[in-house]
Amino acid sequence: MDDILAEALAAAAPHRAAGKVADYIPALAKVDPSKLGIAFADKGGRVWGAGDCDEPFSIQSISKVFTLALALDRVGAKLWERVGREPSGSAFNSIVQLESERGKPRNPLINPGAMVVTDQLIGDRPGEAAIADLLALLRAQARDESVTVDEEVAHSEAATGARNRALAWFMKSFGMLSNDVETVVEAYFRQCSVAMSCRQLARAGLFLAFDGRDPESGVEVTAWHRARRINSVMMLCGHYDNSGEFAFRVGLPGKSGVGGGILAIAPGHGSIAVWSPALNASGTSAAGAAALEALVERTGWSVFF
Amino acid sequence: MDDILAEALAAAAPHRAAGKVADYIPALAKVDPSKLGIAFADKGGRVWGAGDCDEPFSIQSISKVFTLALALDRVGAKLWERVGREPSGSAFNSIVQLESERGKPRNPLINPGAMVVTDQLIGDRPGEAAIADLLALLRAQARDESVTVDEEVAHSEAATGARNRALAWFMKSFGMLSNDVETVVEAYFRQCSVAMSCRQLARAGLFLAFDGRDPESGVEVTAWHRARRINSVMMLCGHYDNSGEFAFRVGLPGKSGVGGGILAIAPGHGSIAVWSPALNASGTSAAGAAALEALVERTGWSVFF
Amino acid sequence: MDDILAEALAAAAPHRAAGKVADYIPALAKVDPSKLGIAFADKGGRVWGAGDCDEPFSIQSISKVFTLALALDRVGAKLWERVGREPSGSAFNSIVQLESERGKPRNPLINPGAMVVTDQLIGDRPGEAAIADLLALLRAQARDESVTVDEEVAHSEAATGARNRALAWFMKSFGMLSNDVETVVEAYFRQCSVAMSCRQLARAGLFLAFDGRDPESGVEVTAWHRARRINSVMMLCGHYDNSGEFAFRVGLPGKSGVGGGILAIAPGHGSIAVWSPALNASGTSAAGAAALEALVERTGWSVFF
Amino acid sequence: MDDILAEALAAAAPHRAAGKVADYIPALAKVDPSKLGIAFADKGGRVWGAGDCDEPFSIQSISKVFTLALALDRVGAKLWERVGREPSGSAFNSIVQLESERGKPRNPLINPGAMVVTDQLIGDRPGEAAIADLLALLRAQARDESVTVDEEVAHSEAATGARNRALAWFMKSFGMLSNDVETVVEAYFRQCSVAMSCRQLARAGLFLAFDGRDPESGVEVTAWHRARRINSVMMLCGHYDNSGEFAFRVGLPGKSGVGGGILAIAPGHGSIAVWSPALNASGTSAAGAAALEALVERTGWSVFF
Repeated sequence: MDDILAEALAAAAPHRAAGKVADYIPALAKVDPSKLGIAFADKGGRVWGAGDCDEPFSIQSISKVFTLALALDRVGAKLWERVGREPSGSAFNSIVQLESERGKPRNPLINPGAMVVTDQLIGDRPGEAAIADLLALLRAQARDESVTVDEEVAHSEAATGARNRALAWFMKSFGMLSNDVETVVEAYFRQCSVAMSCRQLARAGLFLAFDGRDPESGVEVTAWHRARRINSVMMLCGHYDNSGEFAFRVGLPGKSGVGGGILAIAPGHGSIAVWSPALNASGTSAAGAAALEALVERTGWSVFF
Repeated sequence: MDDILAEALAAAAPHRAAGKVADYIPALAKVDPSKLGIAFADKGGRVWGAGDCDEPFSIQSISKVFTLALALDRVGAKLWERVGREPSGSAFNSIVQLESERGKPRNPLINPGAMVVTDQLIGDRPGEAAIADLLALLRAQARDESVTVDEEVAHSEAATGARNRALAWFMKSFGMLSNDVETVVEAYFRQCSVAMSCRQLARAGLFLAFDGRDPESGVEVTAWHRARRINSVMMLCGHYDNSGEFAFRVGLPGKSGVGGGILAIAPGHGSIAVWSPALNASGTSAAGAAALEALVERTGWSVFF
Repeated sequence: MDDILAEALAAAAPHRAAGKVADYIPALAKVDPSKLGIAFADKGGRVWGAGDCDEPFSIQSISKVFTLALALDRVGAKLWERVGREPSGSAFNSIVQLESERGKPRNPLINPGAMVVTDQLIGDRPGEAAIADLLALLRAQARDESVTVDEEVAHSEAATGARNRALAWFMKSFGMLSNDVETVVEAYFRQCSVAMSCRQLARAGLFLAFDGRDPESGVEVTAWHRARRINSVMMLCGHYDNSGEFAFRVGLPGKSGVGGGILAIAPGHGSIAVWSPALNASGTSAAGAAALEALVERTGWSVFF
Repeated sequence: MDDILAEALAAAAPHRAAGKVADYIPALAKVDPSKLGIAFADKGGRVWGAGDCDEPFSIQSISKVFTLALALDRVGAKLWERVGREPSGSAFNSIVQLESERGKPRNPLINPGAMVVTDQLIGDRPGEAAIADLLALLRAQARDESVTVDEEVAHSEAATGARNRALAWFMKSFGMLSNDVETVVEAYFRQCSVAMSCRQLARAGLFLAFDGRDPESGVEVTAWHRARRINSVMMLCGHYDNSGEFAFRVGLPGKSGVGGGILAIAPGHGSIAVWSPALNASGTSAAGAAALEALVERTGWSVFF
């Protein structure tokens, strides 16, 4: 596995130059674009890493996968009354589809859908309760109590989040949010600002590769049918309007974030996290996707075989 | 396997009443909505069947999977210059996306994309050459020389195809079709009018479950990387704006047709064809999808585990 | 003129039953749907009235005409860098066009365009300065110092304005608003909550019928070229996606509000205000439009002859 | 009037360089971009001209105004069941709105709407009957029997009309055309290919400035209420997504064509035709619009005063 990871990084390294670091907030813009890390968590819970695999980065939209798991556990299938599970066919923050579908987001992995999920996870509690749930899950599954919110990033997100506030107010106008807009967006900005390393993230996502169960401890994190469905949503909707390309090239359920991280799930094999900050035109890590493509080519883990 | 198929049909039977038979042409409207069949082709090429599995039906859009395989073999990756591979997020014949993307269809499994594929498969030959290629492939893989075009259906399609002609002229206006519009739509109507039984169809799709190779004869039908990619396109785009729902419930690459058929691929296991004419609101066979869901629950073949 | 106004009201009265009173805030919902008033201000500044012409109502979007005049005086033609002057082809609060046109509203008479105008009118002053400007203009031209904001309506608007906040945040995300979102929407809700009677409103709009000059005093309210252009914008965009219908039937520049008022300008003849709270499906007063149609039929004031 | 026309041309001449001649068919592309003509027809039927006012050009979409008048006379108000009268807010050949409004075009002056009008004008007659009606009207009102179809242009239009065929098939798919698609588009291409000079066109449009009546002979060409409504549709929809700009600058009902002509109606004063082949980004003659703006500034004929 060490060899495979090293080869994946070697294949991916040239792609760092093909992308562009997210620059909408200073905290992301200042990240070194040459960073590149990868980690793999296997069935025994062992984590293999290469490159910058121990350096924490902003997980951003990858957080949506974990809040989805938590919200499904909390409210069950009625979550799907408020958010769909179809690919959106448009960019991550598009408002057009929201209008034609009267405030119901296409899926939980685009921004408005993720805010609905966060709203449901908050329920009638304070917004910070959702973040506490998220951190508890991530810390337990990453086996690392140090996972936390990067307050500088959270503060920057909140200061520049006009588009997300527009999306939230828009859903509010259709009655699709239970909590105050500011409560929801504040929690949403904080969940996006969690910082994790590739090692932590790969370990934290491991339950999704084993039908919802932590394969090391045997503890059920989420029901098997929910884990499968989260994987299907990641496969179809995990990369906004680049999801088809990712499925075509990598062939694994995955979720990208504008911090440059990608979490990919190889059902029955394990969980992979990559990180490289320079993004392609669709907001997915350019070198990260290339590393996963190389890894799958070596391992044959595409779900399409 | 006989038991599994019987159970899948039993679980699916009540769903026949939940759908509506396609009625845009008389030849489809007159099909008995109580029909229900299923067939499974395994690694050895053996075909198991249950219910109305020997009765031919109109494969309609399922033909798009096979023309895609043929066109990729013929023109290679340059096909992707003319058609994308992203979910469309809209109904199967939407013209809106075509306008904003200047005549380049989102993927090869929506109608305009399939017409581009057919246009490429025709190349500089007469339109009927593409149909001859398609029938040769289907007959060889179905192990049945009797597979052919239902001329009555083909005639009806041609007489009522205003929307498809609009789509084709629209692409023509952007220079996205090489051949005359009538040549392309005529061939397209004929490919949709091929009639096959579940047994024939399951056998014909088998190579997609085994990396492009007919597992019985060992003959390569298409390159392994193409087979995987066809599967990824089926998974993300195979059911128009119902693709997420199908992935969520069934978890296999699949393609539906308005004739009530669905072809589903279980990579490494085999190929499944179901048929029941009554369609849900998105144009997918209601009982067919239910049968696949039941079968996957029994077999555990979801790619998401 | 008394006869004409009486006849217009008689023709319009049955149409009150064809509409529905705006009910998104209680203060509007409780207005008596049988109310019907009309007033005409002539070249000499004389105001003729009939029906409920002395009862104040919420002018709502009619305020957009006056803030447009004020903002054009304040910032001149550079206003058009931030807002267009084309019909929108869609509903008054559509967000779709805003996305495709990167936050620049189609015209100043749809909600997002009006918020841009208010933002420009505020400039670097407190939000209330814009309202003070508006009230000063309305009081001077209505010859009535009692014109003011209905605080109950303003409060209700602010409490229910999720859609307008979404539009404002959306424009903010494109950098199209200079002031804080709350500052702009607060001022916008207050301008919409101004209460005026038909008599007051007809007199206040009189300068638009006489090339920007108050015909009684001879004082220039706005430059002649601006008055003409405001009229052209009212003609093309004054009734959202009902503007063509209004031009077709009435043939005068006009602006409607969800409070049931309409201001119409008969260039060279005078200014007409009608009020009837029940709205047609596009949000224009049903009986009000009918009264104007009858009046124009009698007077021949259509600009299209 | 001679002075005014000369001044309008002088003001407009520099604008010829700001546009681009339509080049989608050779017959239009080869027209000399320096051409510039204007003509005015007055209440007495006298026609004044300046510049290249005697040279015939392709009237293109200006023909839509005359087929609208003819179709309204033929089928009356039921025409409006098949075509709306609202501005489209989008380009002349957009297909998007057609989809969301199920094949009913927004107004009769965009291409799909004009094809519906032509379909209605044809009725159950051969397609050429509509063209005969059109030529009879134009010849009678232009007082010139030589007005005819430019067969070279008609032939070119038919050879390159993929987009219009797409629009027609699209409407056909919604059941919005009574005749065969080829019958309708053939007639439509021929009406667009009529060649007229500014003098002929100004004279031909004169009845629209005098409530439907030829002011010289007193003969009613169309009912007064139809003439007014045609003017309102021209004002709101005559220049596609540039209609607001034209109303803003010129303030008269008008209709432009990609041949570089514009017909403008000054109700009560007369009819103006301008021609200059170079078009602005919205497909309106750049110098033509400038000439009209200058003329209106001199004459004060804006309907907004």
